[in-house]
Amino acid sequence: MRRAATALGRPLSSLARRPQSHLRPETQEVLDGVLAGSRAALARAVTLVESSRADDCAEAEALLAALPAPSLRTLRLGVCGPPGVGKSSFVEALGARLLDGGFGVAVLAIDPSSRRLGGSILGDRTRMPELGRRTFVRPSPAKGHLGGVAAHTHAAVALCESAGHDVVVVESVGVGQNELAIDDVADVVVLLLPPAGGDDLQGVKAGIMEIADVIAVTKDDGSTAAAATRALGDVRRALRGASASRAKHGDAWRPVALKCSAARAPETVGGVWAAALDCRAALGGGAAGGDGRLSVLDGPLLARRRGQRAASTWDLARRSLLDAFERDADVRALFDGALGADLDAARATPRDAARALVDAFLATRRVT
Amino acid sequence: MRRAATALGRPLSSLARRPQSHLRPETQEVLDGVLAGSRAALARAVTLVESSRADDCAEAEALLAALPAPSLRTLRLGVCGPPGVGKSSFVEALGARLLDGGFGVAVLAIDPSSRRLGGSILGDRTRMPELGRRTFVRPSPAKGHLGGVAAHTHAAVALCESAGHDVVVVESVGVGQNELAIDDVADVVVLLLPPAGGDDLQGVKAGIMEIADVIAVTKDDGSTAAAATRALGDVRRALRGASASRAKHGDAWRPVALKCSAARAPETVGGVWAAALDCRAALGGGAAGGDGRLSVLDGPLLARRRGQRAASTWDLARRSLLDAFERDADVRALFDGALGADLDAARATPRDAARALVDAFLATRRVT
Repeated sequence: MRRAATALGRPLSSLARRPQSHLRPETQEVLDGVLAGSRAALARAVTLVESSRADDCAEAEALLAALPAPSLRTLRLGVCGPPGVGKSSFVEALGARLLDGGFGVAVLAIDPSSRRLGGSILGDRTRMPELGRRTFVRPSPAKGHLGGVAAHTHAAVALCESAGHDVVVVESVGVGQNELAIDDVADVVVLLLPPAGGDDLQGVKAGIMEIADVIAVTKDDGSTAAAATRALGDVRRALRGASASRAKHGDAWRPVALKCSAARAPETVGGVWAAALDCRAALGGGAAGGDGRLSVLDGPLLARRRGQRAASTWDLARRSLLDAFERDADVRALFDGALGADLDAARATPRDAARALVDAFLATRRVT
Repeated sequence: MRRAATALGRPLSSLARRPQSHLRPETQEVLDGVLAGSRAALARAVTLVESSRADDCAEAEALLAALPAPSLRTLRLGVCGPPGVGKSSFVEALGARLLDGGFGVAVLAIDPSSRRLGGSILGDRTRMPELGRRTFVRPSPAKGHLGGVAAHTHAAVALCESAGHDVVVVESVGVGQNELAIDDVADVVVLLLPPAGGDDLQGVKAGIMEIADVIAVTKDDGSTAAAATRALGDVRRALRGASASRAKHGDAWRPVALKCSAARAPETVGGVWAAALDCRAALGGGAAGGDGRLSVLDGPLLARRRGQRAASTWDLARRSLLDAFERDADVRALFDGALGADLDAARATPRDAARALVDAFLATRRVT
């Protein structure tokens, strides 16, 4: 038999935003610091939401629930591209321009993480030396098996916005799955492509229309300038050839392509920023506010953010379910016993064994 | 209360290899074709194991269970590297050499897949035109959220080996997570790196020791030859600087680095193959057999394959569990109802909502 969904132990009403008074004093202090724009408090808050310790998780949930309603005068800018394309240089140049222009800018750099060592491949902060001194730059491990954008990026973005940052840049090694995952957190996605030859870009180009709002060919300088020009031509041909039905936003926004040189001509990064703002405006951001701040988000981009909240929910739920599965004592006992022996001796196929593990997990759930 | 793991509905004894007589006639025909070396039958078999249709799944399990014990005179060669590095050209050149040398070669090319269209970015077969004419070349979508190597690659490799292929090349866009996932299926991993500058390779290099057995800098020709030489120097310095404790196989095999040009000097690919054979020999493959065939696998690589069977099991189990979760009627009803409304209105955070979904799933499991 199955029990009805209404028999959940936890009433749905408890999902409503809880009052801040439930926070522990030290968490309240972190919250107050975040809201006051303290970089240190923001760092502590992001660490808290990324933590997998049980008591941290409870505090993180309370902290997130206590945040004010999200600002709609922000831009969540995804920056992705293959390794070596120059993501850090681009973000460094863009961030400096925006800070100079009076924007609050935070950077969340999602690292490919090392499964073997359990650690993260460091270096993003040091690869953005100027930006790291001037504002909040955070390398986060993309740990786990659930896509390239870290499970808690959505929450980290909310924290950055609560701390007063208008522009939150989410940078990710974007290839295949990962480019798509950045779509789950960004309003506008900039895809950086290297100044490489036509055939080399084939795999990347095939997905461009589905992924990117703005495409920028990097390293348009020195010995790679000619190649950048050729690559831009390739990309533009691919965009023209692609059907609008494959574009993320259909007719509302057709991806645009340009080239830039973050290292030699940082001002070219301004063109990419302008294109990102155009995209935001076309998708519901309206024109820039008269006060130089970003306009209030509306229309398709607002609907998009709702969709992203849902996607983030499923992502977190999947992760939590898998954690429970892999830690389950019955499942471990089965795998460490007869089943593992059958697998080792090739008496059982991985498919058979997988089915037995899942059956063991679902057959032994707690009955209340 | 929790029920004991011994109360599983399905007795463990059923996990033992089932006799072929359980196969449906059409599946028996596929099996016979695979064992006879039919390329068409192999293609049908791989399609069957990749299918997510319920009746296909049952047949696939039966087919896999009916395969003979895996051959130990094979080499599962992982080839990974960032987009544009020249993986297809490399595999095309290597495959032609091996076929000329009398080896049976099959290629499984894992595509980044398109979530939006549900399809796969095609082109791997056409990017290996010669090899596609001469032998089994299979592009597979890396669909789903569980790593870059498709969930069923382990089974596809087993099918290729049953069809008599000594060398199964598994090619994958390898970056971060994905490079590590190819480790779950390959005996020996070749990492291809572009002839790019030092800083550009920083992220890739940091994980090299954990991922690659052989590193090959590509495009050692024409205008990129000088850059390839510099990149090789960078990689070798990184290898020397890295601690042996970080290497996949410790002292048993230190990764080696070389350069090659698949397009202009296909014979340089032979050097990479020789290094891969050296690695196989060092890790338990012994010297090549006197009959020109690969020697019987033993030692660490045999243990490694056992570990990969286990990893494949967990991968399939996680996938199956998530499928059950996402299809669950109670979970869907909760999300489509009050919970979704709370999320949309930002009355609930994604973390709270995720917890409610998992609770709903686990609270309503079947009680036998």
